[in-house]
Formats: sequence, C-alpha cells, structure tokens
Amino acid sequence: MATQAGAMTDIDLKLAGELGQQLRVDSVRSSTSAGSGHPTSSMSAADLLAVLVGRHLRYDWDEPANPANDHLIFSKGHASPLLYSVYKAVGVVSDEELMTGYRRFGSRLEGHPTPVLPWVDVATGSLGQGLPDAVGVALAGKYLDESPFHVWVLCGDSEMAEGSIWEAFDKASHYKLSNLIVMVDVNRLGQRGPTDLSWDLETYSKRVAAFGARVFIVDGHDVAEIDRAMAHARDTTSEQPTVILARTIKGRGFSEVEDREGWHGKTFPPAMAERAIIELGGERGLIVRGPKPDHAAAARAAQPTAAVTLPVFALGDKVATRKAYGEALTALGARRDVVAMDGEVSNSTFADEFAQKYPERFFEMYIAEQQLVAAAVGFSVRGYRPFASTFAAFFTRAYDFIRMAAISQANIRLVGSHAGVEIGADGPSQMALEDLAMMRAVQGSTVLYPCDATSTAALVQEMADRDGISYMRTTRGAYPVLYPTGEAFPIGGAKVLRASDDDQVTLIGAGVTLHACLDAADQLRDDGISARVIDAYSVKPIDTDTLAAAAAATGGRLVIAEDHHPEGGLGSAVVDALTGAGRVDLTVRHLAVSELPGSGTSEELLDAAGISAPHIAAAARSLTS
Amino acid sequence: MATQAGAMTDIDLKLAGELGQQLRVDSVRSSTSAGSGHPTSSMSAADLLAVLVGRHLRYDWDEPANPANDHLIFSKGHASPLLYSVYKAVGVVSDEELMTGYRRFGSRLEGHPTPVLPWVDVATGSLGQGLPDAVGVALAGKYLDESPFHVWVLCGDSEMAEGSIWEAFDKASHYKLSNLIVMVDVNRLGQRGPTDLSWDLETYSKRVAAFGARVFIVDGHDVAEIDRAMAHARDTTSEQPTVILARTIKGRGFSEVEDREGWHGKTFPPAMAERAIIELGGERGLIVRGPKPDHAAAARAAQPTAAVTLPVFALGDKVATRKAYGEALTALGARRDVVAMDGEVSNSTFADEFAQKYPERFFEMYIAEQQLVAAAVGFSVRGYRPFASTFAAFFTRAYDFIRMAAISQANIRLVGSHAGVEIGADGPSQMALEDLAMMRAVQGSTVLYPCDATSTAALVQEMADRDGISYMRTTRGAYPVLYPTGEAFPIGGAKVLRASDDDQVTLIGAGVTLHACLDAADQLRDDGISARVIDAYSVKPIDTDTLAAAAAATGGRLVIAEDHHPEGGLGSAVVDALTGAGRVDLTVRHLAVSELPGSGTSEELLDAAGISAPHIAAAARSLTS
Repeated sequence: MATQAGAMTDIDLKLAGELGQQLRVDSVRSSTSAGSGHPTSSMSAADLLAVLVGRHLRYDWDEPANPANDHLIFSKGHASPLLYSVYKAVGVVSDEELMTGYRRFGSRLEGHPTPVLPWVDVATGSLGQGLPDAVGVALAGKYLDESPFHVWVLCGDSEMAEGSIWEAFDKASHYKLSNLIVMVDVNRLGQRGPTDLSWDLETYSKRVAAFGARVFIVDGHDVAEIDRAMAHARDTTSEQPTVILARTIKGRGFSEVEDREGWHGKTFPPAMAERAIIELGGERGLIVRGPKPDHAAAARAAQPTAAVTLPVFALGDKVATRKAYGEALTALGARRDVVAMDGEVSNSTFADEFAQKYPERFFEMYIAEQQLVAAAVGFSVRGYRPFASTFAAFFTRAYDFIRMAAISQANIRLVGSHAGVEIGADGPSQMALEDLAMMRAVQGSTVLYPCDATSTAALVQEMADRDGISYMRTTRGAYPVLYPTGEAFPIGGAKVLRASDDDQVTLIGAGVTLHACLDAADQLRDDGISARVIDAYSVKPIDTDTLAAAAAATGGRLVIAEDHHPEGGLGSAVVDALTGAGRVDLTVRHLAVSELPGSGTSEELLDAAGISAPHIAAAARSLTS
Repeated sequence: MATQAGAMTDIDLKLAGELGQQLRVDSVRSSTSAGSGHPTSSMSAADLLAVLVGRHLRYDWDEPANPANDHLIFSKGHASPLLYSVYKAVGVVSDEELMTGYRRFGSRLEGHPTPVLPWVDVATGSLGQGLPDAVGVALAGKYLDESPFHVWVLCGDSEMAEGSIWEAFDKASHYKLSNLIVMVDVNRLGQRGPTDLSWDLETYSKRVAAFGARVFIVDGHDVAEIDRAMAHARDTTSEQPTVILARTIKGRGFSEVEDREGWHGKTFPPAMAERAIIELGGERGLIVRGPKPDHAAAARAAQPTAAVTLPVFALGDKVATRKAYGEALTALGARRDVVAMDGEVSNSTFADEFAQKYPERFFEMYIAEQQLVAAAVGFSVRGYRPFASTFAAFFTRAYDFIRMAAISQANIRLVGSHAGVEIGADGPSQMALEDLAMMRAVQGSTVLYPCDATSTAALVQEMADRDGISYMRTTRGAYPVLYPTGEAFPIGGAKVLRASDDDQVTLIGAGVTLHACLDAADQLRDDGISARVIDAYSVKPIDTDTLAAAAAATGGRLVIAEDHHPEGGLGSAVVDALTGAGRVDLTVRHLAVSELPGSGTSEELLDAAGISAPHIAAAARSLTS
C-alpha cells in the first residue's frame, strides 16, 4: 500500500482487502489449531487493522523499542488471534509460531496479549483497560516526550459499558490528546448476546462526542472509508482525541457464523475452519509493512537526571508521613523521569508540593482512580517513573487495574494516604482497612508502611528505582520522627527499636501502631517486662530473618498490631513469613480492626479497635504471665 | 409548603427559602461544633434539599421501614451536615444530637452517612457509589416491588468524573428507570480547586442526555425553578431517568467563602461561624414535613416463598462447580426473594440457567462490574437476596463497592467463576489469583471455595440466608463429585476426607487443589505415608477446631495448596487461624502461585505453579522424611 498520504489507489484497495482476508484466515487457523480463542471477534476488526497496519501505523517493526514508533493497544485483548496475525503479516512472527504457539504452554502468544511480546505495551483482557492505559501513553507522548507518535487503540463495543472507558475519554479530551485514536469495533454481539446498544452508532457517537472526542462513523468493512477516517484522525490540529466508530459484523467473511449469536469465544472445528478458509479465499502469505516513524525521537525519560537531596526531619518533631511523602516526592522531582499524578486530593496526599514545583510533570486525574492507575501504567510504558497518589481506601477502586499492571510488567508507584481508623472523624468510608491485603496479593508487589518522616523519605527514594508495583501507605496524623537523617531503609528490611538480652516478648508494628508498640514497651518496662520492638516498615518483602531472630529470642511470643482488618495485612505477613521459614513454635496475639468502626478521634478509634498501646501492653502481659 | 401538586405559592417560596437557610445554618453549626466536616459542600445543595423534602419526597418519617417511602441517597456523602440538618428539620434528630453527636465517637451521625441511621439506605463517602446503588433500588422498585416510590439521589459534580456514574446512567436508561431522579449539585469546586468541567452545564447536559436521561438545568438557588423541575421529574411516563443539573455556589449564603477555593472540607472557626449564621439570618427552628407515600405497598420480598429442592449429583461424575452454582441458583429461584444478575458472562458463570427460568428476576448488567455489585446492594436495600456473578478476576473491578457494601451492612452474594491458573489457555488476565485475599479482608465477609458440585449446591443455599458479604469461588473445569446428596456443609466447617490414627502429615486444599490433595494422599500411601486430607471449603470463617486437631494429630506438619497468590488466601487463613488459637508448633509447606502464569492447559499450569498432586506429595515427603 504505497502511500498513506493520498487516497487509496485501486491497487491499495485490493491489497487492503486481501490483507484483511489474510488476517481473518490466520485468526481462524491459529484459534482452531489451539482449540481456544476468539475468531469471530477477530474477524470483525480485520479490515480496520489491515488499513491501519498497511497505511497509517508508523512503526519500525525491526526496532520495537524505537521511541518514535506509534503505539497499538488492543483494548479488546480477546482479539489476540487478529493481533498475532498482524504480527505475522508484518513479518515478525512466523506462521509456524502462530500455528504451534498460540495459547500453548510456554509460548509468548498468550490467550490475551501481554508484554512478553516486544510489540505489546500493556496486558489486556480485562475489558475497559487498554484505552485508559493508552491515555497514559498519549499523555506522556504529548506532554513529556513531545513526540509526534500516535496511540491507536482497538476497543470492543461490549467494553464501552465499563465506566473506565468514560474516565478515559473524559481525561483524553481534558488533556486535548489529539494523538489518541480509538477504533471501536461495533460488531453488535457480546459474549452471551447483543450488547446494550447493539448497532446504535448514533448513541455511541453522541456519547463520545459529549465526552469531547471527534467522531467518525464508518462501515468497518469498507477499506476506503476506513482509510479516509484514519487519515483525518492523524491530523492532530484538532486538539481532540478521535474515535472511529466502525459498524462491523462479527465473524465477517464466513457466512456460517456472520452476525450469529453463540459464536463468541468459540473456535471452529477443523472441518468448519476449512470451509471458513475456503470462503475467505484461502491462505495467503502477504508481508505488508506500513510507514516508519519520521525520526527517532529520544525518549525524554532517558535523559540524565540531577542528584536528589532528600528532605531532613528533626528527631522528635511531629510530622505526618503523608507530608514527608510530598516533600520526598518533590525532592525526587530533580530527576526528570519522575512524574506524579493524583485523584483530586493532592492537598491531602501532599502530592501538591510536587505539582507546584514541577507542574509540567504533574497530572491531575480528578476523581477517577481507575484512570489514575492506568495513567501511571501508560507513563511506565514510556519509561517514566510515575507516582500516583490518592486516599489509600480509594485504590480499592482500581484493584483490577493494579492486578493487570502487574501482568503488564509495569513499574508504577502507588501512595495511599489516610490509612486505617487513625484518620478519625471521617468514618469508615475513608478508612483503608483492606489495602495491605489487596496490595500484598498483587504478583511481585512491594508494600511499604513507614512510621516516621525519615523512613518515609528514604523509602520514597527506594520506590523510585523499584521495578514492578510498589505501594506505600501513609498516615494522616503527625507522629514523632524516630530515625536520624541518613539512616538506610532497604526494601525488605526492618528496624529493631528496642532490644535486650532478656526480652520476653516481641512487639511488631508498622506505621501508626509502631508508635503504640513503643509506648507499650515503655509501659511493660515499668512492669518489669522487657519487650523487643520491631518496625516492619517493609510489609512485602518482609524481613524474615529479623522476625525469626526476635521470635527465637523471645520464646516465640509475638504481639502484632496493625490498623487494618485482621486478614491479609501485617499479621499475615509476619505469620506467613515465620511459618514459611521452617518449624516454628509461636504464641501470637494479633491485634487488628475486627469490627466496623465509626467516627471519633484517632485516639478513641485506635483504642476502640484494640490496637492502642494499652491493648498491646495487655496482650504482651497475657503472653508473659 | 402546602401542596406538592401545583406551583409554589408565595408562602411556599418563602418557607422553602427559610428552610434552605436553616439547613445551611445547621450545617455550619454542626460542623463547627465537631471541628470537622464539609459545610460549604452542604450549603450549595441546601435549596435543592429544602424543596425536595418540603414538597416532593414522599416519606413517612415516623415509619422509615414503610416500603412505600421514597428513597433519598446522598451520593455526595461528605454533605452529611446537610443530610443530618434535614433530619433535624423533619423532626427525627434533635438539635442536641446534631450539635453533640456529629462526627463524635459512638454517635450515629458519622462523618459520612451509614445505615446505622434508619433513614440511610447505603453508606456513601466513596464518591460515585450512591448513584449506582440507587440504580439497584430503582430496579427493585420498578421490576420487583412494582411500587410507585421514587429514588432521589444527590450527586456532587466532582464525582461525575467516576466511571461508575456512567455505568449507572447507562443501566438506568437501559432499564427505563423513570423512578430515578438524580440531582447534581454543580458547585464548580472540588477538593483542591475547580472540577474538570467547572460550571459547564451544557457539557454535563450533553453527557447525561447521551446516556439516556431526561435533563433539566436549573439555578440551584431558585426554589421555584427547582420545584418545577422536581414536579416534572416525578412524572414517570417518560420511561427515562431524570437528571436535574443544578448550578450552585459552594458556600452559598456566606459571602466570606462563597465560590472560594480553599474551603472544601473545612469548618468555620467559631467566630467565623457566628458571622455566617448572622449572614444566613440566624438560627431557625422550622419543622417541615412533606408528603407521605400514597399507600403502604407490601414489599414483594416479604412474600412467602416455596420450598427449595437442590440439584442432585452422582458421586464420581465430573461436574464443574460453576455449573452446580447455576443449577443450585435456579433451584433457589423457587424463593421469590432470590434475584440474580451477571456481568455479561452468564453463559460462563451459568447464571443463565436462572435467567432462563426466572427472567423477571434476572438482571443483565453487561460488562460493568461496579454497577453489578451496586445493583446487588440496591436489591439488598429492598430486602431481596441478590446473587451477582462474573469471572472471579473481574470482581477486583468492584472492590471499592464490595468494601463499601460491608459498611452499608448490605446482604449480598457474589459468585466468581474461572478462578486461578486452572482456567488454562485464556492466560493471566482472566485468572483470579487475588480474590480470596481481597474478599477475606472485607469486614464481616464469608468466603467459600467448594471443590465439588454437591458442596457447591449446599453452600449456595447457605449463602442465600447468610447476612453480610458472601463470596463463592467456582472453578472452570469439571471435577468428580465427592460428596453424597444431602451431606451438610455448614459455613465455618471443613471436611476431613482422609484420616487415620497414624497420619503423619495434613494436606489442606480447597476447590481444585482439594482434588490434587486427594491424589497426593494416594501417592503418599503408596510410599507408606499416611496423610490426613482436609477440604477447607469455608475459607472464612475457617474451621479452626478441625485444623488444630489435624495439626495436633500430625505433628504440626501441614501442606497447604491453593490456586491463588501466596498472600492472603487459604494459606494465610489456615496459618492465621492456628496461630490465633494459642501456642502452636508447626512445620508448614505452603504451595501457591508465586510467578506470573501464562497460557497452557489446566494440568500444565497447575503443575508449573507447583500446586499439582506431585508437588503436594513431594512437599509432604519433605516434611515426613
């Protein structure tokens, strides 16, 4: 397809048509060979991809890491046969790999795309996520890389029912993401029948237009019409994202399944696949590459960055860890690869300090936590080191995005403030009491919960260079600075704050309960009980050696106190670590927030939950008496 | 305000204006007295509430349980001072309680509304949830109760950025919820500055209209205009939900803060509050009640229901637990209080069997998991027993809603299919590997993970009568029926499937790994090792007694295998229970899914994750050698 500038010639039209059929044939072949997959959902979008890949996607297939490449994100990840057939058509995946690898154990051609493939930016397959991720990539391209690449997204029509899609459109128009082009494959049929809106393209059009996008409605099987829309879409002078609403037919090209219910996610048995391939004109071996990017833009993220000087806090001063987060993040802003975003609570999380100093690298995501996390994933795709903050409780809104970010191998940092009953009067809706469990269960995650400003600042710096999904929990109230400037807080470590040769019990806390543990130790000392105190600031990975040594030294007597529900948090982390390390002889008192809390002061609520110093001391006494 | 039928008289206008000022004054007084709260966000919506409560809300304040009452849901829960001031104005909360209770420890007037108050349906405060919950209440009203009540929702403008709001509008129009009336308090200012759309009411209007609502734009401080819009809104012949977009001023009525940034969530110091009260015309003691509902409609949910006959499965037959769920749910359909909903995957979760038999009690929520859970909460408000199903992985999308449902004291049942690596070829995006951790951490939750069809059916029936948040994890593949018809599976129990007097090790599994544990026990027997096998079908609450007895009988040697990430799931449940019960002497091998899985067959993936029978047997051998 000679040129992507002018209108398509007859030869271009024919070639695009042929390529579309090839993509269909290969989608059928690969899914039938695997006995699993979504051929019909691939066939509906094949013509869109044929025109895109042949004429509009500026991509150097020999150099997927080229920062000037366009991005192609399959938000409808179940159309993986189509994506992998595209990879075959551009010559980067062999027919053999497609036919023997798709959905097989150990293969990179997984059931839904993941970044084990070099051309895949983010894992998709949980619907409604590819587009929000793409918004993040487009934000990076427009505002940080200042690179002319486009981000092309293929959405399914079913996923338009996900609220996250509308969070994405809202932010895309707010940030004038003219580099974002969304193709919606409106094939009318979802998994179990017609979609909510079926082929009502007018309603789709009104919705996306109302959310600020430029809209083109096309016949998704008319390659000339698709081509014209894509050419218009590439014009970035409009300052709007573009949506191409394509009316398509599920199973297009194979009359036995076209527009029929009951064929979602079903492969064709071999004989049926043979009939499909014949009807589609047989196998083809086209290798088609479209335009390359105009120039190799250097990714801004790779630029050298300045040294970081962390904020300093005086011992004993009362400083909220959320405040220390804001100051440390701002200090890290000296690195040009650090970007920050927040869910409209930056004056509470203290991300606003970064925003004031580095407005060009701060992105307000408003109250849209799914998009908040997805934006971080998008920045990670472009090599930045994003920090996303909101109230810890509200990251629960984005759990599916966090889970998927791990599968995307994204490197993102989440910082949640206002954790636990400690927040006081606002009541349970604002209290994160499940966040440690939620974040620990994420594959490969890091979970940090510092108790003071010094350790917070040090750990924020550790997070900046940490791969995978890192989470820090910060506290609303101000508590004394415990650690001197310059003390190291390696991830996976712990601090022993009280220790003697005759310790009888170990008190383990993190965040606000660490202070309660220290107070309890003082109370116990007055009773003649010597208690070891451990600051488990690194909840995952946890410092098993320090915990095991303390358990051994104190007769296996442990009191663990946490401002979290009893399940899956610090207590589980400690007990999982110790029982995972070999034979254990333990007597544990685990103090956590079991009942539904209400409003009150921090002190009242911590005490009512049974996690204040007197409760910790009483638990320790019960173990030592 | 004499009548709600005709236009407002001069007296009505004056009274509504006075009532609005009283609500403002009391919002200021209560928040200043507490030193915490959101007066300015209350003041913007005071006139809306004055007109609503005085003339349109049909509510018998003496009988909040009257099923014919309208519902009033504050989706902007931070405007609790306004809501509680309304309760004072209708005479159900005293001025003393308002002034001494608000946000205080032990008081029912919490920082954000919760159903500890009899007039509150659902807890709010996590934005974007009240409206989706209201959609559930309206669905129940229109389709099940067939009652003429209206559901009135007060939304903030900031929360319009949440995707869940658009899931709600989409479903509200799809289901023609003319009984749903949404007031949006467009006061322009969010927590840290202007909202995304500021006072752009035209864009809001286009968006909600495109999502199928009837829209009225009003001056939110013109009581006559508000009244006309509300009178129109109550006309249910349109078959559309109604949205009243009210242009308002944050802090309205007090010139020092009106439309000013920096006053979100801040109370006025006492001297400033005094000036505000003076400017607002001083304290008032109006008691105003609006219309009562026309008749006392009996809630359908309360009707007597037929006996349930659970499906029967033959021992040894291979039946997927998700299939057993569908059959058991359909059997439970004999009870008229059981309703079901699904996220467009009912042919995978097998909720479609219920949908076919009881289409009038099945609600398709399409791919919108937040609205799926919120609908269940809404049905719970009306006394029904909702079962909501989707892939287990996709409940992560709704975690904030599940967390809030617990605070709402909702009684809902969630059933997630396709758990773990067992699902095979679809790959990690579709594999729930965090769900047990996520659900265990919910306050007061129940978490069930049956291994066979018989136990599944029995537990589905147990769930129907279980209060709080219940979750069942089902499996994709078919496995042998292990239990005879009629066996009891109490929640909190466990089954000992292999036991002898000389057991050397305990194997603990649930769901798919229970079958692997049985196979491992057979392999171990061949090696002369006698293993106890426990089916921990009730993951929370877990059967501590049975576990402790097994641990004691087998020298503390435990192998726990689960198709879940290592954190927070079955392994944590077992270890938490045993260490919580007193001194323990344990040697544990915990087998779980540590690495990121890919595609493959069930067998390949279970084995690669190290949770198949050979791995379990090897772990047991390592403990007993």
